[in-house]
Amino acid sequence: MNEANPTAAMLVIGDEILSGRTRDANMHHLAGVLADHGIDLIEARIVPDSTDNIVASIRAMRDRCDHLFTSGGIGPTHDDITADAVAQAFDVGISLREDARAIIAARCKEHGLELNAARLRMARIPDGASLIANPVSGAPGFSIGNTHVMAGVPKIFRAMLEGLLTRIPGGRPLAKRVIEVCSPEGELAAEISRIAETYPQLQIGSYPFRNADRFGVSIVLRGTEAAHVQSAEAELREVFADCLVTAEGEA
Amino acid sequence: MNEANPTAAMLVIGDEILSGRTRDANMHHLAGVLADHGIDLIEARIVPDSTDNIVASIRAMRDRCDHLFTSGGIGPTHDDITADAVAQAFDVGISLREDARAIIAARCKEHGLELNAARLRMARIPDGASLIANPVSGAPGFSIGNTHVMAGVPKIFRAMLEGLLTRIPGGRPLAKRVIEVCSPEGELAAEISRIAETYPQLQIGSYPFRNADRFGVSIVLRGTEAAHVQSAEAELREVFADCLVTAEGEA
Repeated sequence: MNEANPTAAMLVIGDEILSGRTRDANMHHLAGVLADHGIDLIEARIVPDSTDNIVASIRAMRDRCDHLFTSGGIGPTHDDITADAVAQAFDVGISLREDARAIIAARCKEHGLELNAARLRMARIPDGASLIANPVSGAPGFSIGNTHVMAGVPKIFRAMLEGLLTRIPGGRPLAKRVIEVCSPEGELAAEISRIAETYPQLQIGSYPFRNADRFGVSIVLRGTEAAHVQSAEAELREVFADCLVTAEGEA
Repeated sequence: MNEANPTAAMLVIGDEILSGRTRDANMHHLAGVLADHGIDLIEARIVPDSTDNIVASIRAMRDRCDHLFTSGGIGPTHDDITADAVAQAFDVGISLREDARAIIAARCKEHGLELNAARLRMARIPDGASLIANPVSGAPGFSIGNTHVMAGVPKIFRAMLEGLLTRIPGGRPLAKRVIEVCSPEGELAAEISRIAETYPQLQIGSYPFRNADRFGVSIVLRGTEAAHVQSAEAELREVFADCLVTAEGEA
């Protein structure tokens, strides 16, 4: 983690994730995109489609980070309660907004669809929010305070995030390296600990892997200063010279 | 959700998930297994490898559910701090435990590995905990209070969970049905809402899908009483008779 970088948290809203029906894809996508953008993701939570849970989570999380991203619950059906819950969390009203209505109306016209009550529901936006464009299916997300509310459908979430991030100042992406060592983790731990103590400014993680033809440990180095990362990497490569899997690696 | 069923929460511990390097697999696995076991997963959180975060999350989550499951951070390396953090969260000591040491020693002997300090670290167990067997690689997890601490490596997490669940009383799995309707969500929302109001005892979710050859909405019905689920399903099938994708479906 880079102390100077902006921080973020994510709130995934969805009964379907907690029931095991769907495997969430948005958090992993967000994590990768934020890392490239120099924003540190410091926590993620997954909560059910329940107003009380959403309100309490937003209130608890938004003050601990520079940006809170949410996914899920902003569609046209009865179980889409996120916009109302966000308004409640920020103690503001919510109403049908003209610019959001115009976007949805244009989309309906283009596709020969009826602008019915369910679709108009997606134009209800908390007071004071700004819209997040949805180039996939029209109905917008929105930002209020430091909270960015996006759709759960992965294709739409990704498209909204891409546009949103052009407006959010990033930080300095961490320098990252990964070294794969072909030895059990219990053999390597003492040396990895020693090097972690030598470089307290780096995050050094070790992750066992096993696949069809080999097993071992991925050692991941992250830090603000590329020189520190390179230097720690060189020490690890020297210490584990006789059991390195790869010559070069990007985390 | 079934009011009478036990509830659970999950705490995923791992910098590698938040940095986007690894996509968590354990939460989705746990969610499915718990659903089959009649235990309702009510929240999940992902936090970094930081003692303060782990302690605060355990203390916040354990009182809100019958069972708290954790994954990650119980290996032999310097970044494996979960056992110490759990001891701190429960205000108990932690020390090398003889039964855990014996399991790890036997494993080392069997595989011709040295029982070094790093491996012995995995025998440090909070006072008063009971062990969770690890049939994959030996080093055990543990349960303390209502908190069950397991490894992050998916193969080991799954094996530990399988054994653990034989000791945890389950509830009544919810009856589930899914209906796929080949129409945009905005066309269906009013009728789905009407049926959701008719059956307040059911969870009814609607999830848009789109794949190579079709798009539409999956309507998922869940409830304690199979008769309610069947009755609501029959109404939905009648209302959407002209745009049903499938004749039969299990959620």
